[in-house]
Amino acid sequence: MRFHTRKWVKPEDLNANGTLFGGKVLAWIDEEAALYSIIQLENRRVVTKYMSEINFMSTAVEGDVIEIGIDVFKFGKSSLNLNCEVRNKMTQETIVTVDNIIMVNLDENGKPKPHGKTKIEFVKDRLAKKESKN
Amino acid sequence: MRFHTRKWVKPEDLNANGTLFGGKVLAWIDEEAALYSIIQLENRRVVTKYMSEINFMSTAVEGDVIEIGIDVFKFGKSSLNLNCEVRNKMTQETIVTVDNIIMVNLDENGKPKPHGKTKIEFVKDRLAKKESKN
Amino acid sequence: MRFHTRKWVKPEDLNANGTLFGGKVLAWIDEEAALYSIIQLENRRVVTKYMSEINFMSTAVEGDVIEIGIDVFKFGKSSLNLNCEVRNKMTQETIVTVDNIIMVNLDENGKPKPHGKTKIEFVKDRLAKKESKN
Amino acid sequence: MRFHTRKWVKPEDLNANGTLFGGKVLAWIDEEAALYSIIQLENRRVVTKYMSEINFMSTAVEGDVIEIGIDVFKFGKSSLNLNCEVRNKMTQETIVTVDNIIMVNLDENGKPKPHGKTKIEFVKDRLAKKESKN
Amino acid sequence: MRFHTRKWVKPEDLNANGTLFGGKVLAWIDEEAALYSIIQLENRRVVTKYMSEINFMSTAVEGDVIEIGIDVFKFGKSSLNLNCEVRNKMTQETIVTVDNIIMVNLDENGKPKPHGKTKIEFVKDRLAKKESKN
Amino acid sequence: MRFHTRKWVKPEDLNANGTLFGGKVLAWIDEEAALYSIIQLENRRVVTKYMSEINFMSTAVEGDVIEIGIDVFKFGKSSLNLNCEVRNKMTQETIVTVDNIIMVNLDENGKPKPHGKTKIEFVKDRLAKKESKN
Repeated sequence: MRFHTRKWVKPEDLNANGTLFGGKVLAWIDEEAALYSIIQLENRRVVTKYMSEINFMSTAVEGDVIEIGIDVFKFGKSSLNLNCEVRNKMTQETIVTVDNIIMVNLDENGKPKPHGKTKIEFVKDRLAKKESKN
Repeated sequence: MRFHTRKWVKPEDLNANGTLFGGKVLAWIDEEAALYSIIQLENRRVVTKYMSEINFMSTAVEGDVIEIGIDVFKFGKSSLNLNCEVRNKMTQETIVTVDNIIMVNLDENGKPKPHGKTKIEFVKDRLAKKESKN
Repeated sequence: MRFHTRKWVKPEDLNANGTLFGGKVLAWIDEEAALYSIIQLENRRVVTKYMSEINFMSTAVEGDVIEIGIDVFKFGKSSLNLNCEVRNKMTQETIVTVDNIIMVNLDENGKPKPHGKTKIEFVKDRLAKKESKN
Repeated sequence: MRFHTRKWVKPEDLNANGTLFGGKVLAWIDEEAALYSIIQLENRRVVTKYMSEINFMSTAVEGDVIEIGIDVFKFGKSSLNLNCEVRNKMTQETIVTVDNIIMVNLDENGKPKPHGKTKIEFVKDRLAKKESKN
Repeated sequence: MRFHTRKWVKPEDLNANGTLFGGKVLAWIDEEAALYSIIQLENRRVVTKYMSEINFMSTAVEGDVIEIGIDVFKFGKSSLNLNCEVRNKMTQETIVTVDNIIMVNLDENGKPKPHGKTKIEFVKDRLAKKESKN
Repeated sequence: MRFHTRKWVKPEDLNANGTLFGGKVLAWIDEEAALYSIIQLENRRVVTKYMSEINFMSTAVEGDVIEIGIDVFKFGKSSLNLNCEVRNKMTQETIVTVDNIIMVNLDENGKPKPHGKTKIEFVKDRLAKKESKN
């Protein structure tokens, strides 16, 4: 699993217990899943359809650095199945894992559309390919 | 199920597709579950431990009015099991349901603590009881 | 008066004294008045025209649960007169009351438009009525 | 009246009608009244006690520049009476006026405390005075 | 240099050290530069092109009142050169200075467009001039 | 240069021209520089002291995916010199570069403190080292 996005836990991310607000973590996961899918599917019209159960295994406090990892485990016809882990960057302790997030590729009318992708691609390779065609 | 909190979908709640951002909905659910538990358990130290799978059944657009419903289906020893529905206020169309949210009652050191509650209580009744004791 | 929307007072809602920021309360009231009017008037184009004097009677601190109540006391031709109370959910102590909020129903050009409503309606009844017509 | 703080109306300041959200304006007024009082009273523990009626006379759209003016019209014993105007910077059209905002000076226990001020002071003069004493 | 906009440092403006978050200060400067340019150039399509080096000379804490000053030092053909100081309102201590901010005047296609301005103008004078023409 | 954190440009990140708000980009850079330094210096008390000139080379629109890269080019005694690039993830087009960001390592009293670091470290290696000691 590749961990990319990092967050610095700030006062606005805390709940009234002074620990990282669970709702914030869920919003971070959903945003990361969306942008990851946009990159893979080369389509901005991607929505979250489903998230499997969510276990809050530990929490974080103000000043902690968090990182979010995403992996694809299945390319459907018009969907993408991801899993996700949020962990403390310094201790590598897991905060939350989600085993299955289903993202759906949409057309301009908001209907599911086949995306034609079958494996993880890297932007670098895509750009190199384009270059070599010219 | 009682629906209390309402939200007016504003520009800051949208994703880049112009529809209600899934991460925002999840944050709203988590906040509602937390404050509902605080009311029932009469303790501010309550955290989300688990959420069962989440189905995004429909979405919403700017200007829609959303309402969030919560119900308790089990009082554990130091936990509370909730379910939740988010729906469009005007059409009653379901946006998201979550069948099981486990909230945990904590003591001052952040450890699970028995809450002694066994059924839904209403603030009105509690205050009336207090009154009658004086 | 019916109390629906609830808020959990979080760090981002505090002023620099560590108490609930008055401006936040006013923004919450305005949003609740707007969405309440949208529901009653079945029109999204509703704006706040006037608020009568506002008394801050008590405040709240981080972790408090707040609830917001709205009532209609007059259906004008193209307007709606509401009153509002914000109180602490647990103690029922009043934080702010506003005796008169005038909301105006607008047409597509932003001009006042008669709304034809004369009494409080419930979404449930409206939907049942629609159903029975089919 | 002196107009100081300016705001650039951005997407996050709009309501679902695409015009400036009234609640945002109220939050801006409250913040400006608070910081103006802190400056005058040389005390950070200042809270809003009361706002007289609020007339929304016009609105604003995305990209507009807004300015907020505050004036003192009475120095009470432990309070300060302000009035406020919010207007469009470019057209000088009034958006909202509030005739009377009562701010209260608090001590460390949150109780009203005499502030000893009787007229508007300028920070420049205060600092010059301090300087000349040394 | 004229200081207009004021900010009250609130919990959401702090970094995890409990001091004013540098990124927030930069966002405030950019917004002030943008709205100042909009006022001077009488055009809403203005973007930040360049900022010279930024020295964080001191910081601020919760409850501090901050003010932001902007000055023009050059009117280019389609650009505007500003400098900026952010300081503590009460102590006048400098927090950040930026010697050169280049703002560019754009046409409807987002291309640089001559603005025809050569000196600072005041809205009051512009409106008086318009008035006298009628 | 390693690119980690990614952002999905949402309505709340736009200026009134409908393009990515420069102030938001600066806030993102500052946060990334801070959390990168916290990771390297193994100290949460790190502040931004200086940023060299900032060139806005291109912009972004709603729905774009942005990535932020950071590199260290000098380990000072109590400071760290970073450079930064923000670019469009899909096109790799540069949005902003900053050649020199000076971060300072602080002690508990907010005074500069030697950090003892001389080269980039990876959390994985640190944890492995700790493990092998036990």
